[in-house]
Amino acid sequence: MDMAADIASDHFISRRVDIGRITLNVREKGSGPLMLFFHGITSNSAVFEPLMIRLSDRFTTIAVDQRGHGLSDKPETGYEANDYADDIAGLIRTLARGHAILVGHSLGARNSVTAAAKYPDLVRSVVAIDFTPYIETEALDALEARVNAGSQLFEDIKAVEAYLAGRYPNIPADAIRIRAESGYQPVDGGLRPLASSAAMAQTARGLRSDLVPAYRDVTKPVLIVRGESSKLVSAAALAKTSRLRPDLPVVVVPGADHYVNEVSPEITLKAITNFIDA
Amino acid sequence: MDMAADIASDHFISRRVDIGRITLNVREKGSGPLMLFFHGITSNSAVFEPLMIRLSDRFTTIAVDQRGHGLSDKPETGYEANDYADDIAGLIRTLARGHAILVGHSLGARNSVTAAAKYPDLVRSVVAIDFTPYIETEALDALEARVNAGSQLFEDIKAVEAYLAGRYPNIPADAIRIRAESGYQPVDGGLRPLASSAAMAQTARGLRSDLVPAYRDVTKPVLIVRGESSKLVSAAALAKTSRLRPDLPVVVVPGADHYVNEVSPEITLKAITNFIDA
Repeated sequence: MDMAADIASDHFISRRVDIGRITLNVREKGSGPLMLFFHGITSNSAVFEPLMIRLSDRFTTIAVDQRGHGLSDKPETGYEANDYADDIAGLIRTLARGHAILVGHSLGARNSVTAAAKYPDLVRSVVAIDFTPYIETEALDALEARVNAGSQLFEDIKAVEAYLAGRYPNIPADAIRIRAESGYQPVDGGLRPLASSAAMAQTARGLRSDLVPAYRDVTKPVLIVRGESSKLVSAAALAKTSRLRPDLPVVVVPGADHYVNEVSPEITLKAITNFIDA
Repeated sequence: MDMAADIASDHFISRRVDIGRITLNVREKGSGPLMLFFHGITSNSAVFEPLMIRLSDRFTTIAVDQRGHGLSDKPETGYEANDYADDIAGLIRTLARGHAILVGHSLGARNSVTAAAKYPDLVRSVVAIDFTPYIETEALDALEARVNAGSQLFEDIKAVEAYLAGRYPNIPADAIRIRAESGYQPVDGGLRPLASSAAMAQTARGLRSDLVPAYRDVTKPVLIVRGESSKLVSAAALAKTSRLRPDLPVVVVPGADHYVNEVSPEITLKAITNFIDA
């Protein structure tokens, strides 16, 4: 069953939440312990809907458009790890539903581990998908180039989908459609990404900051998930991360590249529930 | 702090529990969710005391002398995976304290995963330490030879400790002392292992049975723990196991051989709590 295909039949509550320091757009579904989802750079909360549908029978699932992305506020500056992590803390406090399980992909994983290390009382545990310390410079260079190239005008949704399919060759068509339908806004002459290009450029630079302290100091459980053929997190970067924290469990998803939760949603879902249900 | 050193100061309740099909000796400490511990071949429940002390503030920790071992019954036959797994199910039912977290080392890991696959309603999750499918024949041959060589007469406890220190060069002295003081009984002329040699021979042969079905079919969360320099579970055996079940989290403990929980108790403890607390 293609997890992304059954989105249409389900209802998500989207709203903007003022957490004081910023207003963030969120999508919510389900009830139970609080599970928050944080997307990768340039993306938005919609990419997690397929997982949220499957988890919302047992969890309050809330996916967040992080600052500078989607329908959230886009301040001029403030796109470092701490800025994103402080937003997470502010949101958890504003929601006032107890500590949260944080599921983050890429940028979202970096931000979730940073928040867990900084605010242990607000975080129950973290599923950190495909972002670790020790990422090689070349990988970050390539990511930065892709990010900056994405900020362009597209004629229509078909053109967006074609571009995204080229940029993410392993992401299935349904998940590409989610990205296309949720991540772009009508402008004169066509469609442009919702994400602010200035914010994305700052964020991409910020991804180079040293993540070792956060991984070294985090006291909450963190599940480290890597796509076996990820071009961002190399096997060497993962091995060094495990040497830094041999007590943290690891899942390596065969056949998945950097976009693990979109390329292999079933294994990602099982990895999350194996971790949370233990 | 050497975890094994502070045993003397703590009190464990030892008793024999009749589960109908057999009577098993157990050690208990603490209160909270039920966490059961299952030792490796020829060993006994005492080896887990250091971990139990640290976990007993939050869990009812019960370590079990498995059939043929320690102070438990030693039937003539019945030392296959299912025999051991059925004992686990019988014990959980007899204890009547809800489903259990199973922490098993080696033989105990094999038995715990088998029980979890066969009795999912009785098991919450499994921490399987250094026993996976796909163990190479040579490794099992070497294990069987060591097991059969252990059944001998020792002059005194010092002789036992010297033998065990030679057989397990990486296990710290305090943990060796626990094994020596808990695993042997006075006989004419000295000390002999409590474990029945006939039972150990049958058990060692039984460790060759195919564990793939249990790992393939288990629906409960299983944390796979391997000693980085284990001579029993090779890196290749672990890789094949992860390919069989990519959704199951893995922890590889650097500097540990097969006897992970005795050689690296701190990382083992953190790996368990990271898994259980997520």
